Amino acid sequence: MQIAIVLYDRFTALDAVGPYETLGRLPDAETVFVAERTGPVRNETGNLALTADRALSDVPNPDIVVVPGGPGQESLMTHEPLLDWLRAADAGSTWTTSVCTGSLLLAAAGLLRGRRATSHWLTLEQLKRYGAEPTGERVVTDGKYVTAAGVSSGIDMGLTLLGRIAGDDHAQLVQLATEYDPQPPYDAGSPEKAPAHVVELLRSHADVMLT
Amino acid sequence: MQIAIVLYDRFTALDAVGPYETLGRLPDAETVFVAERTGPVRNETGNLALTADRALSDVPNPDIVVVPGGPGQESLMTHEPLLDWLRAADAGSTWTTSVCTGSLLLAAAGLLRGRRATSHWLTLEQLKRYGAEPTGERVVTDGKYVTAAGVSSGIDMGLTLLGRIAGDDHAQLVQLATEYDPQPPYDAGSPEKAPAHVVELLRSHADVMLT
Repeated sequence: MQIAIVLYDRFTALDAVGPYETLGRLPDAETVFVAERTGPVRNETGNLALTADRALSDVPNPDIVVVPGGPGQESLMTHEPLLDWLRAADAGSTWTTSVCTGSLLLAAAGLLRGRRATSHWLTLEQLKRYGAEPTGERVVTDGKYVTAAGVSSGIDMGLTLLGRIAGDDHAQLVQLATEYDPQPPYDAGSPEKAPAHVVELLRSHADVMLT
Repeated sequence: MQIAIVLYDRFTALDAVGPYETLGRLPDAETVFVAERTGPVRNETGNLALTADRALSDVPNPDIVVVPGGPGQESLMTHEPLLDWLRAADAGSTWTTSVCTGSLLLAAAGLLRGRRATSHWLTLEQLKRYGAEPTGERVVTDGKYVTAAGVSSGIDMGLTLLGRIAGDDHAQLVQLATEYDPQPPYDAGSPEKAPAHVVELLRSHADVMLT
């Protein structure tokens, strides 16, 4: 089993590392970080770099595709080298997944037409442009497509898919190993729960806050 | 404000990236990944590398120190170049923090003597050897020392400290931006909550499961 996690300039690190630390602990699986070119790939702030060990062209047939989100997604929505790879990889994949705005890349590749899917709450409606049906759930499974909401939701997605593939015991073992017993100091993780002025602040300054 | 996140061979990626995506969004702060040598640093599985952009010696006076855990911690418990840097950085820091077994490195440097602290649940008792008082809390603050439990707890630690430094509104804004509204598919994130046979399986195979 091969898991390919796609990197691109200005991705969001936790989008990639959340599924990595959960789904990536699938027994007998090889996880590879892939990008158009091998080498360090910088996130949206520029002060973090994850290494792409393989080029997209070196990984044509992953069993599981994971596409993280991040501000860099916007400039790739018509970038055929990536979209072509996503289409080809998806043609042979068992599972095609995304976190945050990664779903917009899957949608732009034409893979989510007629599918229920999710994205970061600020970009959810954009899925409609590509024929997908946005939902407010944190993790959405429609056939072999598993999309997750913003940034940290990739942890929940990774555990969910891990349980589906490897069984509940293994998923719980990974949850225990990563001590994923969340105790956020606030209850502000969704626009329904956060104080209204905080939601408004983020809506009006998303371009600054999220890059 | 400068935040230094320490990398070393066989660290655990989410331990570093959790605080990075939360605490690292502190306004007007610079976050730097540091290691003994600059360049890619591999995690415990070897299939993920984060770049250390600066050497420890280039970052002598960080305001906040973050030490992630991971299996590589074990071989560093008497490694003076790192322990010396931790002592010197701590002497000038405003906050000295850790995730998972990172607290054992702080303890080995002599920084947690007489302090309440935490670690991954499997290694919690080891803190006593260094004069620290282990607690079962997820995030423990004692003076300027903030230690977090296993792997994913660094997200909660990062948000907690962010709120303390930048205020509740900003921390909630970051929680909303990262859509940290956890919905784990299982409730197995601590030894008290996970099924007994899963706890036992992890205890007996920790060396395999966690590397």
